[in-house]
Amino acid sequence: MAKPVLYTYFRSSCSWRVRIALAWKGIEYESRFVNLVKDGGQQKKDEYAAINPMKQVPSLVMNESTMTQSVAMMEYLEEVHPEKPLLPEDPLERVKVREIVSVICGGIQPLQNLSVLQKIGDEGKMEWGKFWIDKGFHALEELLKRTAGKYCVGDKVTMADACLVPQVYNANRFKVDMKQFPTIARLNDELLKLDAFQESKMEDCPENLRS
Amino acid sequence: MAKPVLYTYFRSSCSWRVRIALAWKGIEYESRFVNLVKDGGQQKKDEYAAINPMKQVPSLVMNESTMTQSVAMMEYLEEVHPEKPLLPEDPLERVKVREIVSVICGGIQPLQNLSVLQKIGDEGKMEWGKFWIDKGFHALEELLKRTAGKYCVGDKVTMADACLVPQVYNANRFKVDMKQFPTIARLNDELLKLDAFQESKMEDCPENLRS
Repeated sequence: MAKPVLYTYFRSSCSWRVRIALAWKGIEYESRFVNLVKDGGQQKKDEYAAINPMKQVPSLVMNESTMTQSVAMMEYLEEVHPEKPLLPEDPLERVKVREIVSVICGGIQPLQNLSVLQKIGDEGKMEWGKFWIDKGFHALEELLKRTAGKYCVGDKVTMADACLVPQVYNANRFKVDMKQFPTIARLNDELLKLDAFQESKMEDCPENLRS
Repeated sequence: MAKPVLYTYFRSSCSWRVRIALAWKGIEYESRFVNLVKDGGQQKKDEYAAINPMKQVPSLVMNESTMTQSVAMMEYLEEVHPEKPLLPEDPLERVKVREIVSVICGGIQPLQNLSVLQKIGDEGKMEWGKFWIDKGFHALEELLKRTAGKYCVGDKVTMADACLVPQVYNANRFKVDMKQFPTIARLNDELLKLDAFQESKMEDCPENLRS
């Protein structure tokens, strides 16, 4: 079986989620770098759009299939590599994890996606991104107060954690005041101590591709 | 065991997804109506925000737990009511379904969420909503050409279908030209012939709550 190939960009929080999941499960893969800003955006080239019609990273080629959408990939990895799970066993606990995943991946991140920021324009994009992360984090902080232990849901690392850390990275880029969100900040600090989160950071990206 | 309670609003496409899943699986439930526009938005009241910190519908109270986020709910319903499945068995087929779910729920719908439209303002909101649905549907059409049979993925109804039909309803509200998307339009027509999709439409909402 060929090694999985991940199309990724160092600054893409959606790509980082999948890099964390792959690292957590110890799955070796090959990275292909798609620079979202160089050449007007390499993701918009026909060659890449044929792989991913949304013209976004990440894409994952694995077991002779091409997958897009980070949440779908994490669920797939969980099903075919259940060792070192990223979901609890109890359905009522699983729903808590997926709730946090959805708040981040469906409620917060889509509003500071590159294409949205480009539509908003250079002048307003920092305020826009900050506004939505700030609003989303107020809700997420409330949710996490109810579910968190050492990590987002109890004391085991889950998909929710793989989504949280990249979102906090985005929050810092948009200069969100993290003092407002003590639970989120604590979880982020705790998670960044783990190898899977450290290894999957930007270090996978050659210096000349960092825009 | 008490009957599940769904907090819902007739025009919320996210709520409709869950109504479809519940109807498909034949799960009886009680509806509580949260009018997103009346009284400045009933979802913003403290009483409801305590249930759902994102101040959005739907919320589902089931098995003594309160759940938010439609995708998390559908995954939960699938796990605890696997009869009349909404996911295929093969992981590579499941990933196709979840990919479409994510494109809609993480890529398209979040950009025409009520709070986003309110931020954009009355003057620009129709153009904004139409722009993002149009853009998203171009990608979705490509994806569906690869996966669709009678329904979104092959010939069985899945979560992807439960997300598609409410999104087409939104597209029509924003006057998106559906002639551009023959696959999406065909699937929508086919799905609307099914009882679970018909029953879960707006008919669950008393006339006086339709804004």
